Amino acid sequence: MNTELEQVTHIDNIRLGGDETSVVVLDQTQLPNRTVYRTLREAEEMYDAIRLLRVRGAPAIGICAAYSIYALARQWDILDYGPFAEKFRAAKSYLNSSRPTAVNLSWALNRMEKVVDANPQKSMPEILDLLGRECRAIHEEDIAMCRAISEHGLGLIRDGDGILTHCNAGPLATSRYGTALGPLFLGRERGMRFRVFSDETRPLLQGARLTSYELQRAGIDVTLICDNMASIVMKNGWVQACFVGCDRVAANGDTANKIGTSSVAILAKHYGIPFYVLGPTSTIDLSCPDGDHIPIELRSPDEIREMWYAEPMALPEVKCYNPAFDVTDHTLISGIVTEKGICRAPYTESLSALFR
Amino acid sequence: MNTELEQVTHIDNIRLGGDETSVVVLDQTQLPNRTVYRTLREAEEMYDAIRLLRVRGAPAIGICAAYSIYALARQWDILDYGPFAEKFRAAKSYLNSSRPTAVNLSWALNRMEKVVDANPQKSMPEILDLLGRECRAIHEEDIAMCRAISEHGLGLIRDGDGILTHCNAGPLATSRYGTALGPLFLGRERGMRFRVFSDETRPLLQGARLTSYELQRAGIDVTLICDNMASIVMKNGWVQACFVGCDRVAANGDTANKIGTSSVAILAKHYGIPFYVLGPTSTIDLSCPDGDHIPIELRSPDEIREMWYAEPMALPEVKCYNPAFDVTDHTLISGIVTEKGICRAPYTESLSALFR
Repeated sequence: MNTELEQVTHIDNIRLGGDETSVVVLDQTQLPNRTVYRTLREAEEMYDAIRLLRVRGAPAIGICAAYSIYALARQWDILDYGPFAEKFRAAKSYLNSSRPTAVNLSWALNRMEKVVDANPQKSMPEILDLLGRECRAIHEEDIAMCRAISEHGLGLIRDGDGILTHCNAGPLATSRYGTALGPLFLGRERGMRFRVFSDETRPLLQGARLTSYELQRAGIDVTLICDNMASIVMKNGWVQACFVGCDRVAANGDTANKIGTSSVAILAKHYGIPFYVLGPTSTIDLSCPDGDHIPIELRSPDEIREMWYAEPMALPEVKCYNPAFDVTDHTLISGIVTEKGICRAPYTESLSALFR
Repeated sequence: MNTELEQVTHIDNIRLGGDETSVVVLDQTQLPNRTVYRTLREAEEMYDAIRLLRVRGAPAIGICAAYSIYALARQWDILDYGPFAEKFRAAKSYLNSSRPTAVNLSWALNRMEKVVDANPQKSMPEILDLLGRECRAIHEEDIAMCRAISEHGLGLIRDGDGILTHCNAGPLATSRYGTALGPLFLGRERGMRFRVFSDETRPLLQGARLTSYELQRAGIDVTLICDNMASIVMKNGWVQACFVGCDRVAANGDTANKIGTSSVAILAKHYGIPFYVLGPTSTIDLSCPDGDHIPIELRSPDEIREMWYAEPMALPEVKCYNPAFDVTDHTLISGIVTEKGICRAPYTESLSALFR
């Protein structure tokens, strides 16, 4: 075991506060320049942390939401089940509305709600104890899932390969290892070498701020590129596989992920490079038949016009279209790597088989 | 004639200084926030204006270089032809090295040099007079070429169409109308309406700073998007044609243009959308057999890591790959629109026919 690597891949991104009535998160919007932890106590702070991308990455959002609703529940001075369950559902609904696309958010909150629903006969302290176990379980399961995804993903690439990734699906977005970046960290642990190309990922630059930060920190060879450079990098023959995360996978394999992912997939197909989606089965939404049914979050024009700049980069009256995600057609996906193994086309069959 | 539109499409981007020993350029790096004119008197200032993209756009670079070498020549206190021609060639070589990819730069400087070469018997005042005529001719011809390109390009689209463009090939990059944006300005003049999607064009954001500025100013419906959003915009059915400029077109039709252009072309092909390259014949380099022979300028990593930001967006030690251009394979191009008409595949024949 390479403990040095353990140290660098371990990023303490989400945990419960000391008294378990708050959640402490690493504010990802401050990276890579500052390491700032925020203590979230009010529901509005938790909602904002997700909405403003202080905590981001589909699995991390799920973990944060589960811890959040538990921390809130511990603050309530309610002794009767009925009012407690009612307040719990209201808080769940509120937190669940913070971002629309990633399914892990509602998946994690549903798991927490089921604990409440299943135990109307228990006392409040007992229910709180069960909720505490459930959110910790969600977190621990994610670590195990990331590890399993990393193992499966590592089987798809070889020592020395060039890997292109988009946005950030590493430790910050999940827990330990990550999903899309997991095989790279695991391979590094085993002495393999990769050459990673990180799309900067406009408008919020998760690739520049987070992915290249995480990889550099772990001693993995990373080259930052603008999103529009993926084509020339592939044409140069530098990329042997594309690894991306996912926010929601529909029953037919259509995959919503960070805006621009579909572009990477189309380029990869053009250049004959395999394109893999990596994520836990909690990201698969069999109730969603295809990508047309995945809601796509539209965000503020200011993220394009000015957010990250010293001064505006476009006239304030210029219209912007700012979708946070796009859907990659299942026909463009070489494989969907989950903790249970790798699904291949036809996805309608291989994905549903995961849940049998 | 819509004089109001004439006013807004007319951007005074390059002209000779009052005494014709300097060149006055609109500093494009300051747009859209400030309208700053710079007077270039020293050869180093002229070189830097091109290298630092204060003047950019292949045709504009050619015009600026022609005016520059003329302005320099007028400063020299040389009476004999021999020393004059020698100094002229040295200045030409220096200016020509400011950027490697666009062919218009050397094309314009070669035209100026031919004036010197063809007139060894003339007096210095006569040669200076001829050089003054030549650089003005280059500028005036560019205006006429842009107008002709606009006419040909306008025939490719219909009222109400959505057009996607990358980088900036409008009035700022050329002279009046522009190349890729020319048909849109001309169509607007004739009462047509288009819905334009402007890729912001990382790293230097010419689409955000210049294209959306020019179109907005002319009352043309423009929506700014990040480069990685072109795929979803096309998938939404909003784009009926892609119009881009060019920095060098090889004999087989392979086209170098702003980094990311090849990505747009591959996406357009995937979604079945025609992809057109628009530029003057001076951009066609028949001596260059194909895209592999076009030198691609590599620029500073800081343009990706920090240049436009209030603070760095990636760790300073993160490697970056920052090509300024890429080559779009001729098989991805639906047509190359020049002032002499529209070339279609096979380009080896249609392009060479332009010069017969």
